[in-house]
Amino acid sequence: MLSEFDLIARYFTRTPRRSDTTVLGVGDDCALLAPPPGAQLAISSDMLVEGRHFFPGADPKALGHKSLAVNLSDLAAMGARPLGFTLALALPEAEPDWLAGFSAGLLALADLHGCELIGGDTTRGPLNICITVFGAVMPGQALRRDAARPGDDVWISGSLGDARLALAGYRQELALTPQELDEAAPRMHRPTPRVALGTALAGIAHAAIDISDGLAGDLGHILKRSGVGAELDADALPAGPVLARRDAALRREYTLAGGDDYELCFTAPTERREEVLAAALAAGTPVTRVGRIAAEPGLRLLDRDGRPLALQPTSFDHFSET
Amino acid sequence: MLSEFDLIARYFTRTPRRSDTTVLGVGDDCALLAPPPGAQLAISSDMLVEGRHFFPGADPKALGHKSLAVNLSDLAAMGARPLGFTLALALPEAEPDWLAGFSAGLLALADLHGCELIGGDTTRGPLNICITVFGAVMPGQALRRDAARPGDDVWISGSLGDARLALAGYRQELALTPQELDEAAPRMHRPTPRVALGTALAGIAHAAIDISDGLAGDLGHILKRSGVGAELDADALPAGPVLARRDAALRREYTLAGGDDYELCFTAPTERREEVLAAALAAGTPVTRVGRIAAEPGLRLLDRDGRPLALQPTSFDHFSET
Repeated sequence: MLSEFDLIARYFTRTPRRSDTTVLGVGDDCALLAPPPGAQLAISSDMLVEGRHFFPGADPKALGHKSLAVNLSDLAAMGARPLGFTLALALPEAEPDWLAGFSAGLLALADLHGCELIGGDTTRGPLNICITVFGAVMPGQALRRDAARPGDDVWISGSLGDARLALAGYRQELALTPQELDEAAPRMHRPTPRVALGTALAGIAHAAIDISDGLAGDLGHILKRSGVGAELDADALPAGPVLARRDAALRREYTLAGGDDYELCFTAPTERREEVLAAALAAGTPVTRVGRIAAEPGLRLLDRDGRPLALQPTSFDHFSET
Repeated sequence: MLSEFDLIARYFTRTPRRSDTTVLGVGDDCALLAPPPGAQLAISSDMLVEGRHFFPGADPKALGHKSLAVNLSDLAAMGARPLGFTLALALPEAEPDWLAGFSAGLLALADLHGCELIGGDTTRGPLNICITVFGAVMPGQALRRDAARPGDDVWISGSLGDARLALAGYRQELALTPQELDEAAPRMHRPTPRVALGTALAGIAHAAIDISDGLAGDLGHILKRSGVGAELDADALPAGPVLARRDAALRREYTLAGGDDYELCFTAPTERREEVLAAALAAGTPVTRVGRIAAEPGLRLLDRDGRPLALQPTSFDHFSET
């Protein structure tokens, strides 16, 4: 059997890609990172557990992609440019095929975003993937959850709900055709972090969050920390292409409380709509205006005539769910 | 049952302690850290798994301490000053007593070293603790593994082997009296990271590593990366006070290949011995000169007459051990 050190050397050690910021990569007690002059570091950690965040036996390449994608999504929601990440990995056994697939998926996404693997840890244990990611953002430009202001537009990148629809298909909560599942499944297994959009919005948008637990719950975090409320236009919520073919009740449920979307929800002043659209165009990411921030606390869902609809805010919670 | 967010809020969210570097702490997509002007960031991740790095049912307060201590030890080995850390935690259940103990042990050590908890993640899963720690070091001052030079002295902080002796007692590999176990056990459960010594040595010492897997194996990493060898004086190796009462063969085995010592092994030019001793005195940490770096590769153990002794380099390996 390979030793721990052989494993790390074989699958995760490469010559540094980024001589601008990576002073010292994998293989010492610490990595050394030189932040861009004047920049602040945005830092986020996510832990993925088998059976909870992914199915046992999940394709290792997709899993490598997703493990980094969810972290890059946090950087995007902060408006930060990726610099590097650490990977801590607990594995039940040292299985070369699994490691080859996982590292290939992980490092391909890393290279796409110039995000260097600078260190980490490997140990035996129940499968657990913990990534901590580092990005750069200039002082005052970060998209913080506490920065939404009454009158701001509320925007969503891309579309919502197809990842939740795929999960419903796997769980047989809903009957999906094989074609529907094929189309929706990549949204669940290989999310696209909105890095280019997030960095383009730094200095333009006010608040942002990435939608991982469902729009209602995640927007709720912005509202709570900003001390504001919001009105959402139920019919404006952008459903994913597969979900869009379903009925209005399911569309509403999965766009509001789906999960695993990894889109950005952000707020921006109305007078900056043109700049938001220009940033979205430059990033190649569609955006949709779905509502507005109000002074009155709480989240309100409105129909096309501006009348309130019943809203049951639900949010994926790792402990209250059994 | 408490929700995930309640848990985090209750046990791990505090007002930021360090307004100099913590711009934004727990509760957003990312934390924001402002590195000291001109500094590089030293970054390390360690993952601790139940049954592998600690016993099932381990005292949560000691475990909180140790989880951060092993990471601070990596910063110390780089000569970096602690700034902050993230904590990702997988728990089988949300148990308030456990969380209270764990966070108390963790945060007490964090406060002692001015190392702020700036973010993280909490999820349900087999118990797993992943900490990523950030420190500051000025360019060119880091104590890298590849910096040992022929002629350097080899130094050890504190003493070695009592943590391994305690483990042998628990495993009943050796018979320890209750008094011996009481004296040795804190070295295993509550290691002291040599932060003050590490930062005092930055700019004085050449290479450093923290001894987590045993001196022979860990010094071996320095030798390999520096392209050098070393001679160690077998009788100079500083045994812990409990181990010191055992016979020479056990002393030698446990000082060379113990594990869980979390002392620093470092190299420094002979002409800087006085500065090394002054740094150790200022840090309140004893240091012992145990050998020298040689141009010839390999690790050689010498008796008091300078004759080679048989050495079986063993190192704790998380995968090759079953």
